[in-house]
Amino acid sequence: MREVIRAKNSGFCFGVERAVHESFGFINSDGRIVTLGPLIHNTDVTKKLTEKGINEISIDEIPSLSEQDTVIIRTHGVSMEVYDELKARKVEIIDLTCPFVINIQKKVRKYHGEGYKIVILGDENHPEVIGINGYCENSAYITKTGNLDIPLKGKVCVVAQTTEKQANWIKLINNIAGTSKEFIAFNTICKATEDRQKSAEELSREVDAMIVIGGKSSSNTTKLYEICKRNCDLTFHIENAKDLEAIKEKIKYAVKVGITAGASTPEWIIKEAMENL
Amino acid sequence: MREVIRAKNSGFCFGVERAVHESFGFINSDGRIVTLGPLIHNTDVTKKLTEKGINEISIDEIPSLSEQDTVIIRTHGVSMEVYDELKARKVEIIDLTCPFVINIQKKVRKYHGEGYKIVILGDENHPEVIGINGYCENSAYITKTGNLDIPLKGKVCVVAQTTEKQANWIKLINNIAGTSKEFIAFNTICKATEDRQKSAEELSREVDAMIVIGGKSSSNTTKLYEICKRNCDLTFHIENAKDLEAIKEKIKYAVKVGITAGASTPEWIIKEAMENL
Repeated sequence: MREVIRAKNSGFCFGVERAVHESFGFINSDGRIVTLGPLIHNTDVTKKLTEKGINEISIDEIPSLSEQDTVIIRTHGVSMEVYDELKARKVEIIDLTCPFVINIQKKVRKYHGEGYKIVILGDENHPEVIGINGYCENSAYITKTGNLDIPLKGKVCVVAQTTEKQANWIKLINNIAGTSKEFIAFNTICKATEDRQKSAEELSREVDAMIVIGGKSSSNTTKLYEICKRNCDLTFHIENAKDLEAIKEKIKYAVKVGITAGASTPEWIIKEAMENL
Repeated sequence: MREVIRAKNSGFCFGVERAVHESFGFINSDGRIVTLGPLIHNTDVTKKLTEKGINEISIDEIPSLSEQDTVIIRTHGVSMEVYDELKARKVEIIDLTCPFVINIQKKVRKYHGEGYKIVILGDENHPEVIGINGYCENSAYITKTGNLDIPLKGKVCVVAQTTEKQANWIKLINNIAGTSKEFIAFNTICKATEDRQKSAEELSREVDAMIVIGGKSSSNTTKLYEICKRNCDLTFHIENAKDLEAIKEKIKYAVKVGITAGASTPEWIIKEAMENL
């Protein structure tokens, strides 16, 4: 008898799970349903959405929308400007911004209003950061590395893109502490990635074989694979249940098999693989 | 013709200057005038106050005060508890708490009220820190070094004793950034000491001789002497004008003479020395 154990934190984080789950539930018989940008970076998911008639548009295409249309805002959120543009088009807005991102947007709006200079640790080209910056009239100082090329005087409010690295956060705070007399820091880095890695690490110590599911080009999945491989020789990286065929022979004596999955791997792919095992 | 130039920032800081100046102006014909602890750590000053009938009492002696008495609160401030005790005695209160310290007390009271854990960088036995801690029901976590021996969870508000070192501030912030998800930091270290050293450093480069006035055991005066000595061979540390006799011969050819003074050196001692030169 084989035992298949799934890592406690694996696959979608809370925000992505909610967004994908809800998106498939929407029906609009009067107009179009569109997402602003891809809902998530997983072609299995976006293909299924397209089959359901939910297509992706860019922000530039908002003027083409009509009152009958429905617009899904993905987990990254959008700036206030974009939100207002959607409202002006009188479309139905389905806001699936991750609650953790909404929290950042609210903090930024509040402290910008109180005269604080906003600093964001993150990638200036990432939609989440672009959206957050929109809550302080695009006035934020944005740094990816935590380095500052200008000294920040006056009151400063610091936040982070949810997927940033803790080490860069510490570096940024260190730099700000050296120049700013008053600052408030919200460490808004989401624990999901860290928790996922921790669960995979623990599980991989207990099992005979370990299966890591996720896109071959997904960096967070590759990282999971590396962590598990250190503890368990029989660790394999697959994209979906079909890939199990190729490794069945190798794990035939494994009694306890562990499963984990990257952040962009939907539930149905994980479940299909588990049943197959 | 000799030119005597005084360093821009020398002697008392703003808060001490005000406290000493005002203390000498008070008259109470109906009762006693007392200070809670020595007004400043300079015996010249406290001796003069005693001559004027202004004596020092400890906090434990507050119950001995009557309605006719006047109590001077020195620059370090006192806790809310002590303040309330004085009010209960119905004495006249002369509050000479440094405005920069009042600012710290207000921040601590506000953020403690909003549920923040208060952290103070400072010496737990220093009256300024004891006073500040009284504004958060003595619940502050106090560290002198910037090290934390417990991780701080939840919302944290960090302040510093006015005379703390910047390096320890950076260390403390670094430690807090590693454990706390949300914190507000007020760098309340006062620039007075730094400014005094900078002014002395600059002046000592321009003059033929440099006179540093302050107690022989005063560490900040000794530091001023060391800084000046690096730039000017003819640098001398004196306690008051009388000490000038001994060095007169040595500086007889000095055309430009600079003067600076430690934080506990009163104006009259500085002026007497300047006139003597």
